[in-house]
Amino acid sequence: MRIVVLAGGIGGARFLRGLQQAAPEADVTVIGNTGDDIHLFGLKVCPDLDTVMYTLGGGINEEQGWGRTDESFHVKEELAAYGVGPEWFGLGDRDFATHIVRTQMLAAGYPLSAVTEALCTRWNPGVRLLPMSDDRVETHVAVELDGERKVIHFQEYWVKLRASVAAEAVVPVGAEQAKPAPGVLEAIAAADVILFPPSNPVVSVGTILAVPGIREAIAEAGVPVVGLSPIVGNAPVRGMADKVLAAVGVEATAAAVAEHYGSGLLDGWLVDTVDADAVEAVEAAGIRCRAVPLMMTDTGATAEMARQALALAEEVRA
Amino acid sequence: MRIVVLAGGIGGARFLRGLQQAAPEADVTVIGNTGDDIHLFGLKVCPDLDTVMYTLGGGINEEQGWGRTDESFHVKEELAAYGVGPEWFGLGDRDFATHIVRTQMLAAGYPLSAVTEALCTRWNPGVRLLPMSDDRVETHVAVELDGERKVIHFQEYWVKLRASVAAEAVVPVGAEQAKPAPGVLEAIAAADVILFPPSNPVVSVGTILAVPGIREAIAEAGVPVVGLSPIVGNAPVRGMADKVLAAVGVEATAAAVAEHYGSGLLDGWLVDTVDADAVEAVEAAGIRCRAVPLMMTDTGATAEMARQALALAEEVRA
Repeated sequence: MRIVVLAGGIGGARFLRGLQQAAPEADVTVIGNTGDDIHLFGLKVCPDLDTVMYTLGGGINEEQGWGRTDESFHVKEELAAYGVGPEWFGLGDRDFATHIVRTQMLAAGYPLSAVTEALCTRWNPGVRLLPMSDDRVETHVAVELDGERKVIHFQEYWVKLRASVAAEAVVPVGAEQAKPAPGVLEAIAAADVILFPPSNPVVSVGTILAVPGIREAIAEAGVPVVGLSPIVGNAPVRGMADKVLAAVGVEATAAAVAEHYGSGLLDGWLVDTVDADAVEAVEAAGIRCRAVPLMMTDTGATAEMARQALALAEEVRA
Repeated sequence: MRIVVLAGGIGGARFLRGLQQAAPEADVTVIGNTGDDIHLFGLKVCPDLDTVMYTLGGGINEEQGWGRTDESFHVKEELAAYGVGPEWFGLGDRDFATHIVRTQMLAAGYPLSAVTEALCTRWNPGVRLLPMSDDRVETHVAVELDGERKVIHFQEYWVKLRASVAAEAVVPVGAEQAKPAPGVLEAIAAADVILFPPSNPVVSVGTILAVPGIREAIAEAGVPVVGLSPIVGNAPVRGMADKVLAAVGVEATAAAVAEHYGSGLLDGWLVDTVDADAVEAVEAAGIRCRAVPLMMTDTGATAEMARQALALAEEVRA
């Protein structure tokens, strides 16, 4: 079975680990969000791609969900001693190496997709990891800070400000001009199932869908497209989905997110058991819906979520 | 007193520390060799400038004489895990930060001299540290390896091969087109004394002198120019001066090095007491010469060498 997964960072990566346990024989292609990418210290940092790569490759810091295990922070300490920031972005020494290799390969002319493939030869994530695009896309967030309207990088909004202010608008800068990376449309066209993990529907899955051609390819693939709600009990399980959903005028509810994707794109939707009363509204919107436990407390629970998603896909197909 | 010092790496840096103790009130400008510079992992590494900066700024690994104290090597380990080399060049995590800042500033358009000044605002080396040139100069060495003639970067010759093969030629690539960095000629013109520490006469001091304008400015400065022999008892105190001297047809003796610089450039020359019999030949070549202890065993001994050099300068001046 060929499965295509649109993934953000931590939530997407953890879901993928469950999916690998649930469907060990499946041929999984991950289309990773690169809208969170940022240039720091002259280096190209791809947080979501790396989180997927490290998580599936056994290098992730399990507790925090991002960054490397057994990490030290000497480079960052020294950069701070030179007065070079930002200090709010936590790059560890081992993680720096990934960005150094990536930046060197990009400077040598390799596209991000080729660089990602090269990095994955070390990590063997067990999936084919593709960036959504080789073109630069950067999610920016409009906020009001100190009485002034400012447009800041998504990482500044999320990591520095901890989403403590309202997001007035979310703009994936460059998305309109971006092309899907080589292999992305082909993987979608060849998929048996397409899954949206409980990743952020605006700044993760939404950004991937903002690359012209990807949404259309998914809608036209003619295979079940099933998503899992990142909103449980009217709040995001982790992250700031509520804040960025507000920016695009969508309520932070499991049903509203399904309707935001829409029945033209989504065939099935899993909500958590606490949101069982949303099933009716989602089905009324033309999307098959089931209520199952959606907390990724461990890989076993996550694998069960993946099984439920695949089961719903087969139900849709039949 | 304004002193200009032409410095390589470890030997130059240690001499400078002695000079600071010998002449704490002096206004010292260091013209640093950049011919050892190398691009590694997409980063600009300036080993000699950094050795001077770290040594005088209190950040040097005292035992090895280069690199940072309290150093870790996680970035390098990870680069190796990605299969990205070279592995033979020992860049530590803290050291990486320096190269990251430098590379970022160079990419932003700052010349190396401005970058070096910025880095020094952190280290406060107590001297004005100028690169010999803002232009790229890279010392290459012609060798015979496995029966083939190859031209390799100086760092490959020295760090990787440990100068284990003969150097057939030493070429400071780019030197002919290079211009002295801003401030270099002005510092020389304003100097009261010019010193050549016991740095390598070919690949350190020689490379600086290869930048058009610098040798001439020193010769025409009209102030005492005094050097200290890096050769003691017909062998280099450290490094591979004998190998690279052979490449330029100069014997590895204290006298031969003085004559290689020549009386047109050099006014005074210090040889070690074990080379006292060289004094006559050096003086016959028109260079005032004294035999004094030249082993930089500690800062006290090194300060005494600096005092002797300054005393010889005054003798020459009178």
